[in-house]
Amino acid sequence: MTQDRLTRQIEFIMEVDKLKSVLRQTVITSKERNENSAEHSWHLALMAVVLAEYANEPVDLLRVIKMAIVHDLVEIDAGDTFIYDEKGHEDKAEREERAADRIFGLLPGQQESELRALWDEYEAQETPEARFAMALDRLNPMLLNYHTGGPAWKKHGIRADQVVARNQRIERGAAPLWEYAREIIREAVDRGYLQPARSE
Amino acid sequence: MTQDRLTRQIEFIMEVDKLKSVLRQTVITSKERNENSAEHSWHLALMAVVLAEYANEPVDLLRVIKMAIVHDLVEIDAGDTFIYDEKGHEDKAEREERAADRIFGLLPGQQESELRALWDEYEAQETPEARFAMALDRLNPMLLNYHTGGPAWKKHGIRADQVVARNQRIERGAAPLWEYAREIIREAVDRGYLQPARSE
Repeated sequence: MTQDRLTRQIEFIMEVDKLKSVLRQTVITSKERNENSAEHSWHLALMAVVLAEYANEPVDLLRVIKMAIVHDLVEIDAGDTFIYDEKGHEDKAEREERAADRIFGLLPGQQESELRALWDEYEAQETPEARFAMALDRLNPMLLNYHTGGPAWKKHGIRADQVVARNQRIERGAAPLWEYAREIIREAVDRGYLQPARSE
Repeated sequence: MTQDRLTRQIEFIMEVDKLKSVLRQTVITSKERNENSAEHSWHLALMAVVLAEYANEPVDLLRVIKMAIVHDLVEIDAGDTFIYDEKGHEDKAEREERAADRIFGLLPGQQESELRALWDEYEAQETPEARFAMALDRLNPMLLNYHTGGPAWKKHGIRADQVVARNQRIERGAAPLWEYAREIIREAVDRGYLQPARSE
């Protein structure tokens, strides 16, 4: 019985290895290649440890980190949807729900519930932990894009107002990090990584 | 002042992005490429969440996960040393100490101390958390190797007794996982992924 349980847990652990093959639009700082969602999740977890002090409300750091670690698992089935891909976002929720059913369903009952609840909490954005985790998830690609000369922004001709619109929810999780992000956006426009806002 | 602090923290976060370019001997389950140390660290953190119940002693899961997240950062300067590379291990400790000084030193004082202490704790292997984290770090590449047909073992002609010698410390952190690992080793010999033990 215990052996069955461990076997299921190991099968889950092997299945999620596939997240290492889900590519994002972001380029890593060496500029050699695009980032994958597994290493991205690690980066968020480390950001959570280092930047926890900037959360708007006190957060349970363990829960933030767990969310960072599991928040992208659904991409194994649903793929990564680029943040500025409006068409891709139409059926994103449905695709990701199905993926969550299958992937978390690999785990034994209680663990399935626990990890699924973390993912649901992240998606619902109703707790300080979920808002802080998402703030990091939005800040991270801005930092990477900025530090690599904005390849993902340039490739898709992204404008500053789009970046503001899509990322201002950083403020809901960590206001000081949004202030920092706004400086990056201004600087990215100055350097030509981002198109100016349409109203400018 | 706060801005200075945040700037240093972000510089650290950008610097550690380099871990995504440190390659390990292990191949990811898609077999497309070798694994890197950043996604490996993510995988360990997720294993810690799922397998915590098998730790020999009750563990502080947050500390285990933090260790998993930072334990390989030194490889940014020191590189990954293959576990069966005896020559590489001669000066590993010295190379990694220097790396730890530089990389954790990028952080503001108190955070430098906290993250350095986590890495020191992991290396010292004197707490249940450190022993459990290392058990996961040893089990993970065995799982990946086994599930990909043993490429890293075959490439270096590794024998079962070498795998036992290098990995039996899994037992010190999580005895049930070592029992599971021994089954994998037996099966890997049967399948020809590993050479039989020299005494056999």
